[in-house]
Amino acid sequence: MSFSVTILGSSSALPTSNRYLTAHLLNVNERFFLIDCGEGTQFQLRRYKAKFSRLDHIFITHLHGDHVFGLPGLISTFNLLGRKNALHIYSHPHLEKILHQFLSNFYADLDFPVVYHTLNLASSELVFEDDKLEVLSFPLKHRIPTCGFVFREKPRMRNIRKDMIDYYKIPIREIPNVKRGEDFITEEGIVIPNGRLTFESETPKSYAFCSDTAYSTDILPYIREVDLLYHEATFSDTDRDRAIETFHSTASDAARIALQANPKKLIIGHFSARYKDITQLGEEARKIFINTDTAEDGMVITL
Amino acid sequence: MSFSVTILGSSSALPTSNRYLTAHLLNVNERFFLIDCGEGTQFQLRRYKAKFSRLDHIFITHLHGDHVFGLPGLISTFNLLGRKNALHIYSHPHLEKILHQFLSNFYADLDFPVVYHTLNLASSELVFEDDKLEVLSFPLKHRIPTCGFVFREKPRMRNIRKDMIDYYKIPIREIPNVKRGEDFITEEGIVIPNGRLTFESETPKSYAFCSDTAYSTDILPYIREVDLLYHEATFSDTDRDRAIETFHSTASDAARIALQANPKKLIIGHFSARYKDITQLGEEARKIFINTDTAEDGMVITL
Repeated sequence: MSFSVTILGSSSALPTSNRYLTAHLLNVNERFFLIDCGEGTQFQLRRYKAKFSRLDHIFITHLHGDHVFGLPGLISTFNLLGRKNALHIYSHPHLEKILHQFLSNFYADLDFPVVYHTLNLASSELVFEDDKLEVLSFPLKHRIPTCGFVFREKPRMRNIRKDMIDYYKIPIREIPNVKRGEDFITEEGIVIPNGRLTFESETPKSYAFCSDTAYSTDILPYIREVDLLYHEATFSDTDRDRAIETFHSTASDAARIALQANPKKLIIGHFSARYKDITQLGEEARKIFINTDTAEDGMVITL
Repeated sequence: MSFSVTILGSSSALPTSNRYLTAHLLNVNERFFLIDCGEGTQFQLRRYKAKFSRLDHIFITHLHGDHVFGLPGLISTFNLLGRKNALHIYSHPHLEKILHQFLSNFYADLDFPVVYHTLNLASSELVFEDDKLEVLSFPLKHRIPTCGFVFREKPRMRNIRKDMIDYYKIPIREIPNVKRGEDFITEEGIVIPNGRLTFESETPKSYAFCSDTAYSTDILPYIREVDLLYHEATFSDTDRDRAIETFHSTASDAARIALQANPKKLIIGHFSARYKDITQLGEEARKIFINTDTAEDGMVITL
């Protein structure tokens, strides 16, 4: 199963000449999930060849403009492209009224349903689940109610060996049981241990998105041991005062969180437009957590 | 005096990988004027190095999303950049309520005033005037109330010859009169004809913007003999039915308008995303009006 993250925008409040506003695209087995939707997200989705027709779920962390101003344009584009399938938006409850009020000035009706799912934002909850994936929200520490999201693949069934199916003449109806880990009993009554028939599937992948937030160890239980942790680092350590004042993190804040959560990899982003070069922020983080990368628009991370 | 037009976006309803949504930037002597503000306009303004602090006037042709969805982001960016000077928006009266309602969800108050100027859209009117420039609106023929704009430099005072100031000892207080075309009378009572003291200034420049609109000769009185005419050509002649249905123009519609209005140059734009290559649209227009260019994002036309 494929699981990749494309960073569509890595700037904070102000865009720069090479960084768009916040949006991350997840491709989980050719189904697409969007986290946040700053202005211009639809341009980036196009540039990085997302399949618009397979993007059915948008998760919004909080209602600051740099995380949501791309929604009216994206929804309009869906409508112009003839979309019929429902679009699910997971967000603070106010977003439904805000978008409905705004879009009603431009459309009598959209040709597809938009289904709003309310996040409580004060505690963690399971916000999406299907047979392969679950998405949990968890509270972040920002100026307004904000949450992060963690995407976790569900444990997969074991892989069955094709040669063993033939060898032991395993009937088709028995295959799901064997994949679930059961032994197989032949017509002659011989018990074949599961370990001889199957091998382990890939380990389930996980991705945690934490932006915008001040340094907070409260998030650790939700993000421990994920494959990839994206944590904002709006400021350099040299601007720590500004980070505290605005409820954002510094690069070393992000790295200290990673040191405790132990992800396979940390990516820092949501950089303030004041930094023309973010090399220093990467260095500050790597002093604390070595396996850190700095986000660039268009970066694709395959888990 | 400099007078240039930068095309920030030349696509119609849907953006493409190389065309943003409608927005044109005018630079008249280092004062900036924006026409329309589709999503992503602030990125294009940044890319083409507009001076945000000198952009005080935004003219909106009509309230379709592809012409206005960039306003919330641009206004937020102005606020973040510490803007204090008033921003003037000229538009359909509903825009004030729409923007106010939307932005009030994100800002208690902006740090600068936004002054809304109501366009009547049913007839032509003078919407802006200063000592050097005037802007007139005029009705276009679209699905909803829509107008075009024509920007005209005012006739300039004549240039005074410096050698003549010295030769005839023209006092400073007399210079404005001479520039206005008056003769000068020396201390000895000799009348020096103005033609000996001055020479003509550059001819005033003019620019007309016509998008979105069906073919309509009603606009001719407002755009005759302009230096540059921008007229939409959303469709190729092969999609004429679609143009009629949606109140847009074909490339040859735009050229027929130019043939009658006689601008020095025609630029066609606002292309439907269905055309990957707009060469054909240029050819269709040039068959009728030879001096036609096709718009590209980032194109700068100096008048």
